[in-house]
Amino acid sequence: MQDLKTDQLTKRFLQPFARKAVSPPPIWLMRQAGRYLPEYRKVRAEAGSFLDLCYSPKLAAEVTLQPIRRYGFDAAILFSDILVVPDALGQSVRFAEGEGPRLDPLKSVADLSRLALSNTHDKFARVCETVDRLSKSLPRETALIGFCGAPWTVATYMAEGKGSSDQAAARSWAYRDPAGFSALIDILTEASVAYLSAQIEAGAEAIQIFDSWAGSLADDQFARWVIAPTARIVKEIRKRHADIPVIGFPRGASALLKTYIDGTDVDGVSCDTSCPLQVMQAIARTGKAVQGNLDPLLLVAGGEALDKRTDAICAAMTGLPFVFNLGHGIVPETPPENVARLVTRVRAPRS
Amino acid sequence: MQDLKTDQLTKRFLQPFARKAVSPPPIWLMRQAGRYLPEYRKVRAEAGSFLDLCYSPKLAAEVTLQPIRRYGFDAAILFSDILVVPDALGQSVRFAEGEGPRLDPLKSVADLSRLALSNTHDKFARVCETVDRLSKSLPRETALIGFCGAPWTVATYMAEGKGSSDQAAARSWAYRDPAGFSALIDILTEASVAYLSAQIEAGAEAIQIFDSWAGSLADDQFARWVIAPTARIVKEIRKRHADIPVIGFPRGASALLKTYIDGTDVDGVSCDTSCPLQVMQAIARTGKAVQGNLDPLLLVAGGEALDKRTDAICAAMTGLPFVFNLGHGIVPETPPENVARLVTRVRAPRS
Repeated sequence: MQDLKTDQLTKRFLQPFARKAVSPPPIWLMRQAGRYLPEYRKVRAEAGSFLDLCYSPKLAAEVTLQPIRRYGFDAAILFSDILVVPDALGQSVRFAEGEGPRLDPLKSVADLSRLALSNTHDKFARVCETVDRLSKSLPRETALIGFCGAPWTVATYMAEGKGSSDQAAARSWAYRDPAGFSALIDILTEASVAYLSAQIEAGAEAIQIFDSWAGSLADDQFARWVIAPTARIVKEIRKRHADIPVIGFPRGASALLKTYIDGTDVDGVSCDTSCPLQVMQAIARTGKAVQGNLDPLLLVAGGEALDKRTDAICAAMTGLPFVFNLGHGIVPETPPENVARLVTRVRAPRS
Repeated sequence: MQDLKTDQLTKRFLQPFARKAVSPPPIWLMRQAGRYLPEYRKVRAEAGSFLDLCYSPKLAAEVTLQPIRRYGFDAAILFSDILVVPDALGQSVRFAEGEGPRLDPLKSVADLSRLALSNTHDKFARVCETVDRLSKSLPRETALIGFCGAPWTVATYMAEGKGSSDQAAARSWAYRDPAGFSALIDILTEASVAYLSAQIEAGAEAIQIFDSWAGSLADDQFARWVIAPTARIVKEIRKRHADIPVIGFPRGASALLKTYIDGTDVDGVSCDTSCPLQVMQAIARTGKAVQGNLDPLLLVAGGEALDKRTDAICAAMTGLPFVFNLGHGIVPETPPENVARLVTRVRAPRS
């Protein structure tokens, strides 16, 4: 992505993806729409299941807008979930309260017959209706980010049937039967391209690919299951929508971040909290946009410790193409007033 | 650690820590004594609780020796647990079958009064009796490794009361009350120096410091809670036992590995599976010994995929000070014959 169209120039969030440093930096926060907000909890309580909320354009748009109204973030991110893709493909997903997602796990290549891209139309359409509503109701200066989970990360849930700390089911499958696992990754890659393209056509102005479990892989597996499918998605999106920035978030893969950027050609990366500021600087100096990476637990703690680290991150990234963000999503225990304090601090004039 | 004493020269494992490349590389595996071995499960079933096994010199020595008899590894590692230190200090640890460790969590600096170095004598002495037995019964060519958990990682269990995927209790405490958390780290640092010194005096010929949860920290927190206390331990151990190599294992901190080595002055590092081979090479080229980093799940899968990656790791580290190991501990599902296959492969003559 090289040039911005005129209407994009008014949006601060988009500038760093055109290699421009913005001062003060644009800010949005992962999971900025979520349980820490009382107005979110109210909508959530009325919505039925978590996926019902994701599939309700009216309610999903409403919760997406809530943090924009409160804090005036520079970007809104579509309220949805990375498991919409397997759910739409045919592996139904359930969210038990306080337990996280549950799926009937895929055990081998034979189980892939349960999945079909032709199943996805209705569910993808509902998400895109949310995007459409948002693009018509967001403030003029606020950018809209669409997203999907990266094929590797989504596959870890599909193989395990739930979240896991070590992604053992997917990693083992990939070792045991790389051709079969590759078939799953291919289905997810194709579905992701269709899903992201539809979001862009409905009004998303940037795309983020969440690879939350990229950090567990050896370098050869990372090249095959993280870099290669992400590169395919980037290439296909760029072919159709050359002006839309694509942001990668290979969480936990700091030591392979440069390899990831070179291999995928993303326009920018989100960095997790463990990514050293020096690594973020080095990447931003190559002209790629960098997002990150305040510890969400520091946003819970608040106070001077929060101010100090916020200042340190901003100082390190001054003059570079940078978007202020967290290293991971806001946690439910976060006091909303600490978020206000953070936004004020990031936007304060600096000497 | 610069020079080896005459009796150390016969031990292949110790050579890389004196900056010497050994071909084929020495090999040992984290958790090489464990549930994947039927002879271990037999002893474990007779031992009472898991900590009873750790505190029984006879049984702990026996299970330490089992994988040496089977596979002739170049090093034995004391069978024990990183939570011996809090248990000995006075925060009693329980292992519920299939559930992992449980402790009454420390919530604030006031709870530190439950801990005292003067409590540790009897429990540390039992572990050291195991070391003493091992140093008298191991084959002449097998090195004996002692170990402890790093203060940060041990503190995460003490604050959380159990293992956790995000170490939220310790990270939050460190933000909320850095002085109080620092007092806990200081107690653990002092206890670790005493514990490791006692192991060395009983016959340990190298020391490994396991920092399993080092990967979750921002760089400033990593400097304070991982590097600083580890540097103190290394300095104190070297003052007393200049000829004993100290190996650090800051798991998940690949992007900060060089910073860790420079800051702690360890003689070598163990690398987890996600550490790129290029990073391992770069470190070994500076003369520091590197251990790692085969994926334990590949040892479960076995077959040609195992052979191929084993060859790739060995080829990458040829001519460098290197010890073959896993990136994490052996998992219980590992077929013992795959371990035999790995050892044969690592020791096969290479062109």
